[in-house]
Amino acid sequence: MNPIITAFASSPDRGQGLARDMRVRWALEEVGQPYDVRLVSFTEMKQPAHLALHPFGQIPTYEEDGLALFETGAIILHIAEHHAGLLPGDANARARAVTWMFAALNTVEPPIVERETASYMERSEAWHEHRLPMMEERIRTRLGQLSAWLGGADWLDGVFSAGDLMMASVLLRLKASSDMLEEYPNLSAYVARGEARPAYRRAFAAQLEVFNASSPG
Amino acid sequence: MNPIITAFASSPDRGQGLARDMRVRWALEEVGQPYDVRLVSFTEMKQPAHLALHPFGQIPTYEEDGLALFETGAIILHIAEHHAGLLPGDANARARAVTWMFAALNTVEPPIVERETASYMERSEAWHEHRLPMMEERIRTRLGQLSAWLGGADWLDGVFSAGDLMMASVLLRLKASSDMLEEYPNLSAYVARGEARPAYRRAFAAQLEVFNASSPG
Ligand SMILES: N[C@@H](CCC(=O)N[C@@H](CS)C(=O)NCC(=O)O)C(=O)O
Ligand SMILES: N[C@@H](CCC(=O)N[C@@H](CS)C(=O)NCC(=O)O)C(=O)O
Repeated sequence: MNPIITAFASSPDRGQGLARDMRVRWALEEVGQPYDVRLVSFTEMKQPAHLALHPFGQIPTYEEDGLALFETGAIILHIAEHHAGLLPGDANARARAVTWMFAALNTVEPPIVERETASYMERSEAWHEHRLPMMEERIRTRLGQLSAWLGGADWLDGVFSAGDLMMASVLLRLKASSDMLEEYPNLSAYVARGEARPAYRRAFAAQLEVFNASSPG
Repeated sequence: MNPIITAFASSPDRGQGLARDMRVRWALEEVGQPYDVRLVSFTEMKQPAHLALHPFGQIPTYEEDGLALFETGAIILHIAEHHAGLLPGDANARARAVTWMFAALNTVEPPIVERETASYMERSEAWHEHRLPMMEERIRTRLGQLSAWLGGADWLDGVFSAGDLMMASVLLRLKASSDMLEEYPNLSAYVARGEARPAYRRAFAAQLEVFNASSPG
């Protein structure tokens, strides 16, 4: 039986590939694991059946025989541990790849999400225009440090790993709503390398298909 | 040789146990692994030698023969994978414990840190008083969902795990700067259960000792 993931029945991003099932699809495509998708509406996501799977009422979730997970970090780590292709064989290199997953989710993503949240929750507040550059400076601090680390390398620690999959996914959120990434040519090129991977493209096409099927007309 | 972690030479929290080396000390105490501590100043943290260990110029880092890690999530997962005591033996229960580590770091911590950051970076801005309740509502949403999940249980998924260690560590940050946690008696009790663990107390005492030694008079 294929694992089952949940995704938005109707994605608010209009097919841009930002909903977080995208990362999980990408990981599953990298390792060649077929999967099924169950679509959930915003209403269903906050109801008991879904909350039993995901305490915070979000997507994606991941189910396979006897196991239900949430959090893209945990889902992708689980996939990476059970299939070849997303974590190096060497134990130390593996621990470093996992470090980059946490860095993506706990160091780079939060200021990016803060800016996104403000842009829809605080957009009409008088202070928003003034706070925006403050939030952007915090993002630039992280991008500058990441750019300095990456230098001229293709990936964060030698070979492509789940750490790169997660970091590129996080940077793609920023790319969709700002030009900041372009200030760091090596990071732009890094994200483009991620997007060019056949597994990414298959995942993107599969997510877009849901959007096209659900969008009227 | 003992692993070596880095910690603040002079902690800005004045011995409250909030600096993130605390989590790593706690994990090492839970599994009974002795460790050494190298103290770094704020200036040193942003210099090349430290940036080679931690691209974002922060503490803690973790070093053992041939391996250097950063990100508390990755460090604690590494410790948990190499010692008994922080992850259940059953593979599915283990994946769920890892899920709670990611939930703590990617879902619960970001709105808490956003409020902390605003309270020192935006305190003097005219809008701060108005934004504070908005940020607190976002935190309450997460606390309410977490509280509903926990119910009357002692730990998030049966037995104490690295997921609880991380979640309690994140909630302790909030406790130090707000009364919000007390609105959720089961979460307050959950955090208190964490703080009562002998390993937590040893870790706290060790961190406090550094503060006392460094504070003049
Ligand atoms: N930390 C979670 C975040 C999940 C998340 O933010 N999901 C979004 C979609 S991309 C969602 O379900 N949002 C709806 C909501 O929060 O109500 C993860 O990495 O899985
Ligand atoms: N995501 C990182 C966060 C590390 C972090 O924020 N460290 C703080 C101390 S608790 C720090 O070094 N702050 C100084 C700075 O960022 O300049 C982790 O979990 O390890």
